[in-house]
Amino acid sequence: MAKSKSAPTMKDVARESGVALGTVSKVINGIPVGESYRLKVEEAIKKLNYRVNNYAKGLKSNHTNTIAVIVPNLINPFFGKLVHYINVSLSEAGYQMLVCSTDYNPVTEQNVVIMAEQKKVDGIICLSYNPRLQVSDDIPFVSIDRYFGENIPCVTSDNFGGGTMAANRLIANGCRHLAFMRIGSPLSNETNKRSDGFVSACQAADVEYSLKILNDGDSYELFRDFLKEHFKNGKLDFDGIFCVTDSLEHSIEGMLTEMGLKVPRDVQLIGFDGTRRFGDMELCCSTIVQQVDKLASTCVEMVLKEDRDNLPTLVCLPVQYAYGRTTIDKT
Amino acid sequence: MAKSKSAPTMKDVARESGVALGTVSKVINGIPVGESYRLKVEEAIKKLNYRVNNYAKGLKSNHTNTIAVIVPNLINPFFGKLVHYINVSLSEAGYQMLVCSTDYNPVTEQNVVIMAEQKKVDGIICLSYNPRLQVSDDIPFVSIDRYFGENIPCVTSDNFGGGTMAANRLIANGCRHLAFMRIGSPLSNETNKRSDGFVSACQAADVEYSLKILNDGDSYELFRDFLKEHFKNGKLDFDGIFCVTDSLEHSIEGMLTEMGLKVPRDVQLIGFDGTRRFGDMELCCSTIVQQVDKLASTCVEMVLKEDRDNLPTLVCLPVQYAYGRTTIDKT
Repeated sequence: MAKSKSAPTMKDVARESGVALGTVSKVINGIPVGESYRLKVEEAIKKLNYRVNNYAKGLKSNHTNTIAVIVPNLINPFFGKLVHYINVSLSEAGYQMLVCSTDYNPVTEQNVVIMAEQKKVDGIICLSYNPRLQVSDDIPFVSIDRYFGENIPCVTSDNFGGGTMAANRLIANGCRHLAFMRIGSPLSNETNKRSDGFVSACQAADVEYSLKILNDGDSYELFRDFLKEHFKNGKLDFDGIFCVTDSLEHSIEGMLTEMGLKVPRDVQLIGFDGTRRFGDMELCCSTIVQQVDKLASTCVEMVLKEDRDNLPTLVCLPVQYAYGRTTIDKT
Repeated sequence: MAKSKSAPTMKDVARESGVALGTVSKVINGIPVGESYRLKVEEAIKKLNYRVNNYAKGLKSNHTNTIAVIVPNLINPFFGKLVHYINVSLSEAGYQMLVCSTDYNPVTEQNVVIMAEQKKVDGIICLSYNPRLQVSDDIPFVSIDRYFGENIPCVTSDNFGGGTMAANRLIANGCRHLAFMRIGSPLSNETNKRSDGFVSACQAADVEYSLKILNDGDSYELFRDFLKEHFKNGKLDFDGIFCVTDSLEHSIEGMLTEMGLKVPRDVQLIGFDGTRRFGDMELCCSTIVQQVDKLASTCVEMVLKEDRDNLPTLVCLPVQYAYGRTTIDKT
């Protein structure tokens, strides 16, 4: 994660002074420490122009009881469900939720971070693929699905495990030539591990596989071209396809149907997310289900944690496979 | 709308004193008015125990630049989309959005209103069917889809027109025995007008129709029973059904398919909302489309309006019909 140059953090002071973070905190909060430590810390504070006053107003003394939540939008069903459950968890903890549905606007996202730096919110839970988002370490900040760096806790599903699960399910269902299809941010992020898990399971089972990876902004027509390249004499090369999201599964299923193929008879499909029609009805497809309520409560627990030095940097929550019409499951 | 007894409003003072609202406002804000008016207003303030101080801190002097949005949840795609566009509009106006996704919990809803009374937010945009929700007139409050009373502006779609449109479309498509099916709050609300519009168009065209109206909490099995009662010798009495939401259309279509009927060949279906699969893909069914972005921006405009005495009490925005596979449209 890029560091905001204008706002040195307590950790920077610790690094600069060569003094432990806990000791720096004591000095800043006026708790007595050994004289030599105090002098080192004060020197580092001066050198870095660390804003003691801003910190002194600090988190504990100036609670807003509000957490900001950054998501690209609330139209995608996964994001809507996630924000809903974050709201439920925050509410149980006595916190309000400020939602910033950014439409991928980096300026809007950065403004939320500035608000947090000005202590107008107590912390941020953020699902963003904006590579230039700058966050200073002082802010309680939890990232979803994207690993920002060693100082920022990230909460995600076990994407690798989910990829393995999808491949193994297709193989157990009798598929012998698999494909993985993905469209998403080119930025390295946790969801990329879905393909890693898929590949690993295919290799372990010695099953043939192909990958078709597109970046956000690429035309879906490239998927159609890919399918057509692998379609000869009314037969598709693949008998099982794992799609990176349920939404992509929906698009791919439409293309296969247009090509005259029947799902799941001719080709079995598995998506990822566990999206239900109209939010709470049947599953849209056979899928790897994310525990959205658990993801949400974990983010809330971590953003509200007082002791931020001992937070894990990555938490992966278990996923599970669920049948939803697009596979032929044996048991 | 029930009035909160503990918080008399400036309008109550006007009523009690028999003095115009503008004059009451002047007295409260220390602007000179005729002596006799001033005495009357001051007497009413005392009698009602009107909290002058709280008002004096008032809206203009104590902006939070935050609007609270109350919705039942963010899992229903209509609610998610609505809140997304409210966020976009608020953001353009320089406002933040506090979301309260209540899960139909009346205590949570009432707490948001209390926050607004304490000037912790500048206003509320509220989609709630809670009959006991109490709001004092002082708070900028805009209701969606439910008419609270003469002092509270309500923004909704032209539900009556949408109902008419659905019936007329089915009739134009050759249907001769229509049905309307609905499940929802028994509380009188704007969406009930969908059936009024439907009935009115059927009567105008002299077309036979049936209604099946259920209340929230009723089992969907009652819809199945209704359909079976009207199913004889492999034929359904109805050739066109208007469903109160796209979500209900989805359930009804599933029941009809299970009964061996083909949509739209045997029976044409129209929903309401304009829901798209995965938020932005194809329409889920032929439907009456609500302009969610327009609903959102209208709510925002109205909640931020300075002159609250001249707000309309009801704004109905136009809807339009869109084809989505479940009808056989001629032209």
